[in-house]
Amino acid sequence: MRVGVFGYGNLGRSAEIALSKRRDTELFGVFSRRCVSNIKTVYEKTKVYPAAEVLKYKDDIDIMLITAGSKTDLPNITPYLARHFNLIDSYDDHEKIASHIKKTDDGAKIGGKLALVSAGWDPGFLSIARLYFSAFLPFGEGATVWGRGISQGHSEALRGITGVKDAREITVPIPEAVREAREGRFLRTNKESHVRECFIVKEPYADEEKIKEAVFSMKGYFEGYKTSVHFVNEEELGKISSDFSHAGRVFRRANGGKCGEYSFFAELFLKMESNPDFTAGILASLCPALMKMRRSGAIGAITLLDVSPKDLFPEEEYFKLIERYM
Amino acid sequence: MRVGVFGYGNLGRSAEIALSKRRDTELFGVFSRRCVSNIKTVYEKTKVYPAAEVLKYKDDIDIMLITAGSKTDLPNITPYLARHFNLIDSYDDHEKIASHIKKTDDGAKIGGKLALVSAGWDPGFLSIARLYFSAFLPFGEGATVWGRGISQGHSEALRGITGVKDAREITVPIPEAVREAREGRFLRTNKESHVRECFIVKEPYADEEKIKEAVFSMKGYFEGYKTSVHFVNEEELGKISSDFSHAGRVFRRANGGKCGEYSFFAELFLKMESNPDFTAGILASLCPALMKMRRSGAIGAITLLDVSPKDLFPEEEYFKLIERYM
Repeated sequence: MRVGVFGYGNLGRSAEIALSKRRDTELFGVFSRRCVSNIKTVYEKTKVYPAAEVLKYKDDIDIMLITAGSKTDLPNITPYLARHFNLIDSYDDHEKIASHIKKTDDGAKIGGKLALVSAGWDPGFLSIARLYFSAFLPFGEGATVWGRGISQGHSEALRGITGVKDAREITVPIPEAVREAREGRFLRTNKESHVRECFIVKEPYADEEKIKEAVFSMKGYFEGYKTSVHFVNEEELGKISSDFSHAGRVFRRANGGKCGEYSFFAELFLKMESNPDFTAGILASLCPALMKMRRSGAIGAITLLDVSPKDLFPEEEYFKLIERYM
Repeated sequence: MRVGVFGYGNLGRSAEIALSKRRDTELFGVFSRRCVSNIKTVYEKTKVYPAAEVLKYKDDIDIMLITAGSKTDLPNITPYLARHFNLIDSYDDHEKIASHIKKTDDGAKIGGKLALVSAGWDPGFLSIARLYFSAFLPFGEGATVWGRGISQGHSEALRGITGVKDAREITVPIPEAVREAREGRFLRTNKESHVRECFIVKEPYADEEKIKEAVFSMKGYFEGYKTSVHFVNEEELGKISSDFSHAGRVFRRANGGKCGEYSFFAELFLKMESNPDFTAGILASLCPALMKMRRSGAIGAITLLDVSPKDLFPEEEYFKLIERYM
């Protein structure tokens, strides 16, 4: 499979690496909106193309990984590129995923392509954990706790604010939230389980209070969360941003037995030293599933909820999967 | 959905409860090979039918949960009943699942039915965790650690030995195996990570040495494991068997980044105070998926690897699932 990467930030670089390491994918090249001659790729041999010329290559690329920013870029780029490419993105604004799917579905159906959206670790990996947990442990309740780690989506959302030169957001789980969840007590909402620490380098002209206001009121990202904003210089931000680690946990507790006398508990714990490399690894791992589903006639926009476990390894014989994983 | 339960031991009783609690299933009744008039059900209103008459009711039952014993009963019962009923079983001899699927597939295709086999928590829940973990964390390694808890499948395997009147097997994880897995070190095989403690009430005439030999040499269950056999009286076994709790963990560690410099880690932890109630809850939770797939034309034998996450809640609108779980 010849796979392109559209967008060349942290996630794009990690996608370049992930696609180069897999045996079943071949990196076609990366597309950037920046000046191509200024871009230094991870591997010398990686080809760099101007984003504006992407449609020239529509017949040369089997799948495009869209690694542009979730907040401002993907809502436009994904539906547009879905007309021309089978694609995978990691759109992460949980509250707007439904509308992102619908817009992308329209584009993909016009072009006869298949688009798998919102496919990182959350939304993505943790989403299907929440779904399986709810199905298999009914009559219960659950929670998701993220961090400690920089959220790429939230950092990019900060960088979209006027007057913000650069920024990172660190999602910090409140220890009591994790402890309570381990004990099967889910008294807190997501918003009560996390602190969102924002570190911002502002433009010289910018007004701190206006930036803070824009942060605190941003729906889906910061509104309603315990959010702190720290204005730092570029050197300080450099130290913060060099730590790519992140973590996430999904908890579920439920009751069973005639009188609900038995307790059931499930926890998925993910820990990664590099969020972009982990996310890009998931996107790359979905290329075979996407091609299999496309070949069997699927078009439009889908998510991980549509991908059956066996489709994750389409090249393997079913009974090999049974022997290996069952 | 009218759902029957075939086999009325611990798992059958738990299935009676699980089906009665769900809103989308209606318990048709339980089928037993024992004398029907001697059977006391969990709920007074539950109907009990002789197993021998099961085919009389083939048009009255949408799905049959097969809760008979895995070792000796399911290899015959499931393929046979698959000719006449859509069904779900929890066949758990990992090494023979492929052949169980093939035999059941033949039966189900003859009858135009759909059979979902090996659908408990392991095989089942943990199987799909292993598959997702391998897909999303490639270039790594993993392990599964079970216990501490009574294994229904292994206990039933013990009870199938000539001269064994009653028996329970307790699977005990070796603490170092869990600790090493948490640190991403997987030096041990499954067989080196567990102790299998067998508690057996023998028939008066039976020879202890012969029973031990039969246990130690049983492939797929005890052969190659650190296995101990304790002969106990019925009272002692009663105490042991009143604890239905169990637990299981799937671990995966992998590397990412250009030079493999980043470590990724995933763990699924399941803990249940009642293994049969948890298992039966999973079987019952799969009824809507089975009916949806059957209605869309699927026949033959499938496993959880074939069920896409969204099919677990077919009655819900796709976009409700997206909003709730993504």
